Amino acid sequence: MATLVFGHKNPDTDSITSTLVMTDLQTKLGMDVKACRLGDVNKETQYILNHFQVEAPTLIEEVTENDEVILVDHNEFNQSANGIEKATIKMVVDHHRIANFQTSEPLFYRAEPVGCTGTILYKMYKENGIEIEPKIAGLMASAIISDSLLFKSPTCTPQDEKACRELAQIAGLDVETYGLEMLKAGTDLSDLTAGQLLGIDAKVFPMGSSTVEIAQINVVSIEDMMTRKAELEEQMQAIIAEKGLNLFVAVITDILNSNSQVIALGERTDIVEKAFNVELTENTALLEGVVSRKKQIVPVMDRIA
Amino acid sequence: MATLVFGHKNPDTDSITSTLVMTDLQTKLGMDVKACRLGDVNKETQYILNHFQVEAPTLIEEVTENDEVILVDHNEFNQSANGIEKATIKMVVDHHRIANFQTSEPLFYRAEPVGCTGTILYKMYKENGIEIEPKIAGLMASAIISDSLLFKSPTCTPQDEKACRELAQIAGLDVETYGLEMLKAGTDLSDLTAGQLLGIDAKVFPMGSSTVEIAQINVVSIEDMMTRKAELEEQMQAIIAEKGLNLFVAVITDILNSNSQVIALGERTDIVEKAFNVELTENTALLEGVVSRKKQIVPVMDRIA
Repeated sequence: MATLVFGHKNPDTDSITSTLVMTDLQTKLGMDVKACRLGDVNKETQYILNHFQVEAPTLIEEVTENDEVILVDHNEFNQSANGIEKATIKMVVDHHRIANFQTSEPLFYRAEPVGCTGTILYKMYKENGIEIEPKIAGLMASAIISDSLLFKSPTCTPQDEKACRELAQIAGLDVETYGLEMLKAGTDLSDLTAGQLLGIDAKVFPMGSSTVEIAQINVVSIEDMMTRKAELEEQMQAIIAEKGLNLFVAVITDILNSNSQVIALGERTDIVEKAFNVELTENTALLEGVVSRKKQIVPVMDRIA
Repeated sequence: MATLVFGHKNPDTDSITSTLVMTDLQTKLGMDVKACRLGDVNKETQYILNHFQVEAPTLIEEVTENDEVILVDHNEFNQSANGIEKATIKMVVDHHRIANFQTSEPLFYRAEPVGCTGTILYKMYKENGIEIEPKIAGLMASAIISDSLLFKSPTCTPQDEKACRELAQIAGLDVETYGLEMLKAGTDLSDLTAGQLLGIDAKVFPMGSSTVEIAQINVVSIEDMMTRKAELEEQMQAIIAEKGLNLFVAVITDILNSNSQVIALGERTDIVEKAFNVELTENTALLEGVVSRKKQIVPVMDRIA
């Protein structure tokens, strides 16, 4: 039976493209693998798949004790497939903190503190001496552009930009032109419901004794998105009740000006106020210069919670 | 302040040599690092350090919230330095299962399911294009010989043997002659107390709701070691009481014939009987063909517990 490769729930571009890329790499190394995904493909990712004429991975609902799996772009079990604790994890390639993760046997685990899983996968092709096809290079370059917001996010390292520019050359892409088109394709959110908006890129984090969900929405105008605040809040309250969350934070990120407006609901909104030294007014506050959930939001809130 | 590099408590050869090797590699990559250890150097390791005229790492007792650290040959916090949960873990290079490990920020983590940390470090020199000095090659080769019992352990992969033979060439070693001398040096246990014998290579594992300590002692004659059974049992009972263990297993491994005699004490000796389908007679049983704690003992017991 093929080993299942997948990224996190609510897959973003890096999770989908890294799944496809890792599947390509392991196939070329002789392994029987199958590309899967744990949720819908977002608009930015769909733009990329169309551009390179690549099919999306297969949607799966859960894994079982009979499955061997490879995780990309995540490791925390609560962000992974339902049933993950019963499956056999053979490999992980990731760029996040490690938590809520364990195995009973040794495995291949490769994490590096870089801005994108694509950057690590690029190294793995080189180390294994495997030639990179143009469309595979394009997928990795796109993931780096997505995760780094065209190199503007503080998560972006010199390694990421260097890898992206090398990959773009293989793929025949103009990074700036293609990158801006791609990012803008992801911000066309007009036809999405509030529930869909909050589901684009949501992750749950245990912090201290609290359970916190943080949903990020990339936009070109914070003002436009804030016209839907009441609708978003209603949906957030429903999710808090359904999942028993202590805190739900919606992060609306202006990808052109690199600021984020947060909406925070739940019994532990004090975590947000203390972490960022702001006062929430009608549940919301502007966090200037904050664009990275991983680097500028999760660790800061984790220290307070 | 230098980043502290260390292996697990009760350090074995791989933990000590990988500390020295990782310190060499990171120094050559421009990092300010210091080689440390969490316990005494055993006889096998001392033989190796003498052979290559290398000094042992510095003994440390604990780490603090001000320390940045690099872990080699382990990741589980209960096998690491006291205070590890407060330190900032920058890197891990390991070949064990991942459990009881977490960070609040992204890090470099490199694990592969091979027989020895030395094998992974050897790859890292190659990937980074760093030349390996003969004495550093000798340390890595020695670790592979130690962890694989000269390629006879089931944990040994083709990668380990290949790496060891390449490293031995750089170091100018005859693998078989040097290897047997080195392993025998580690089995000269005549002057050790029962407490010292049990401390040579002991690790604590949470299994289900139980806490289990497994101490391995490599010998050339199980019979000789079993003349000290009463003395070992008395010491094991004392450690069980002191640490509140549910089970203590002493594994006496015949490195020439690849068998192990176990002595099991504590309220959960049933785990040993069920895991290996044996009956303990006067607390002991022979496990034929069993030499690897990591591959043949821990996962089998973990499934039962």
